[in-house]
Amino acid sequence: MNLEISSNLSNEVVQAIRRVVGTGRVELHEPTFEGNEWQYLKECLDSTYVSSAGKFVDQFEGEIANYTGAKHAISVVNGTAALQIALKLAGVKAGDEVLIPALTFIATANAVTYCNATPHFVDSEESTLGIDALKLREYLSGNTSQVSGQCLNRNSGKVIRALVPMHTFGHPSDLEALLAISKDFNIVLVEDAAESLGSYFNGKHTGTIGLLGTLSFNGNKTITTGGGGAILTDDSNLAKHAKHLTTTAKLPHPWEFRHDEIGYNYRMPNLNAALGCAQLERLPEKLLAKRVLFKRYQETFANIEGIKLMAEPINCRSNYWLQNLILDESQANQRDTILETTNKNGIMTRPAWELINSLPPYTHCPSMNLQSSNSILKRLISIPSSPRLV
Amino acid sequence: MNLEISSNLSNEVVQAIRRVVGTGRVELHEPTFEGNEWQYLKECLDSTYVSSAGKFVDQFEGEIANYTGAKHAISVVNGTAALQIALKLAGVKAGDEVLIPALTFIATANAVTYCNATPHFVDSEESTLGIDALKLREYLSGNTSQVSGQCLNRNSGKVIRALVPMHTFGHPSDLEALLAISKDFNIVLVEDAAESLGSYFNGKHTGTIGLLGTLSFNGNKTITTGGGGAILTDDSNLAKHAKHLTTTAKLPHPWEFRHDEIGYNYRMPNLNAALGCAQLERLPEKLLAKRVLFKRYQETFANIEGIKLMAEPINCRSNYWLQNLILDESQANQRDTILETTNKNGIMTRPAWELINSLPPYTHCPSMNLQSSNSILKRLISIPSSPRLV
Repeated sequence: MNLEISSNLSNEVVQAIRRVVGTGRVELHEPTFEGNEWQYLKECLDSTYVSSAGKFVDQFEGEIANYTGAKHAISVVNGTAALQIALKLAGVKAGDEVLIPALTFIATANAVTYCNATPHFVDSEESTLGIDALKLREYLSGNTSQVSGQCLNRNSGKVIRALVPMHTFGHPSDLEALLAISKDFNIVLVEDAAESLGSYFNGKHTGTIGLLGTLSFNGNKTITTGGGGAILTDDSNLAKHAKHLTTTAKLPHPWEFRHDEIGYNYRMPNLNAALGCAQLERLPEKLLAKRVLFKRYQETFANIEGIKLMAEPINCRSNYWLQNLILDESQANQRDTILETTNKNGIMTRPAWELINSLPPYTHCPSMNLQSSNSILKRLISIPSSPRLV
Repeated sequence: MNLEISSNLSNEVVQAIRRVVGTGRVELHEPTFEGNEWQYLKECLDSTYVSSAGKFVDQFEGEIANYTGAKHAISVVNGTAALQIALKLAGVKAGDEVLIPALTFIATANAVTYCNATPHFVDSEESTLGIDALKLREYLSGNTSQVSGQCLNRNSGKVIRALVPMHTFGHPSDLEALLAISKDFNIVLVEDAAESLGSYFNGKHTGTIGLLGTLSFNGNKTITTGGGGAILTDDSNLAKHAKHLTTTAKLPHPWEFRHDEIGYNYRMPNLNAALGCAQLERLPEKLLAKRVLFKRYQETFANIEGIKLMAEPINCRSNYWLQNLILDESQANQRDTILETTNKNGIMTRPAWELINSLPPYTHCPSMNLQSSNSILKRLISIPSSPRLV
């Protein structure tokens, strides 16, 4: 590799980002609190209901349901907990397999593990950064059989119970094709929409197309509750069960403590929901800012050879949670230099997650060929994406 | 039963409580926010660090360690998560058994279940409301064998890995005797101190005598972070591992995402830690108020026949989290009438938890004879205990 060219490209990237974000240290993604955050927190304290009861939890759940178009939203402590419970409600049992992309945050796989099930890794495609539906269909056709209405992995002898697309960096996966696979192969579709609040596939909000979907409101997300997540579903029984499971499965009674199954202490505290209510009010303008930021990056990167800026997939509206550069194959060997140069220059950037099948706890898990995921990982760089940069 | 006498006793209880708490509706336990809560929450918002990073998490952990005398405190999302991780760190593995009281909140058992281990129920004693150490020693002597330095349950063939006393309603269990059992039978002592922040056994804070201990800061506890908990330990390696496991087991790197084991998204958000820092500053006065409340109840109940007020065990200082009435055996059949009458009169009271071995998910689990726990359950009533009542 010619070091001078490499150094030139990374310097070009620094300059291009600086043209958009200005001077000074720039984080990858920062929350902003410019609305009623303080007022609602104060109201929450004054009410003394900061914990498991209080009006903000109900309000937040109602507003999340309303915003996403899901019939029900159940707020929980974080996105990982949301996915664990959603998988349990989808019928995932000990010994099952669950299809997830290898290119995702480790929480997707951990949620499967908490159900004592095994993640089964699936390749992603460059156009959506999500599961490659075409390749998945072919793989399932060649490796599974339908037995008593269940999808049996012929290689492991285990049931493939659920399929979990993750809408990477806010870009919706190909939900139409994945929903068709879910139906054709009898695998429950559960959407990990942790990164895609405000993202739509064909006009439907991500997380509302599968039987269940899950959101995250971690501090680095489009809106934050400090820590938090939500389960989305249109099914009233599943919603009721989700609430029950996430509140220790306690049977309603003014004073008695009876629990009828193994539940979880996963409720979102009212304090965090108060923050969420205020954040949600400003979501439209945050999303707008993120679109504007995309346009600005698009202009500034248009003339740089060997790099493209990730745009929302066809028929989708992305929340543009994280903006991403994708290097041409020929420039893949410059990823680390660009990461080092930008971070050294006070511009926080990062690569995608190491593929989960390469991490020690998951090397033993079943996996299809992950050629495309590997290629994306080698070429993708996330760049500063805070709405306040606009 | 003579209904008139029953009605008389419950009316006496209502009057006795009213003499202490005055008129109006009275909750079982309410938090108060009279210190720096607003200021710290505002500071947290202004810093924009509300989530997984921020100074309040470090500060809260340092102050909890300092207050309890534990070398290390690791803050987490709630007390259940704290206990799950503490058990994992204590070596609890799938297929193990863990000794826990049957008379505890279901979270103690659930934390065991999350480790794919089985709770093994132990009887409690009336003098501490915690595990009856004498009875436990006799039971273990008769039912276990030492095999390769492990304690084998001869009936199930499983290893009994840990012993988890829970310091019921803030009263310390007999930790000296339980520590001796732990040593003699090679069973790791892990303290569920969810209810006993501010409680001491022989001058040592509860949760610091076992290899690990856990706290809860739920809204109904002595101090609250909205939702939250902590793991206590003097062992630096366990502390480091606890932090690693509760923060998704991510290896430190400025931008790379590598995780070396199955971790958990259990960190306490900075927003909740900010509340905790303010609450902790007022802990001494809350504890003082709770002692004064105990004295007042003691006076008012001194002359009521058939009922005693639960006092701290010998050699212990209790935080008096919940004040409890214990009916004489002869009055046990009046528990429900008293519960109904007090609640109808706007005085929130409640019985102890249904014994866990009687709940559907846990009926199959091993258990010793629970005579004393059953008797306590039939006779105990928790009464309003908020520090603000003084």
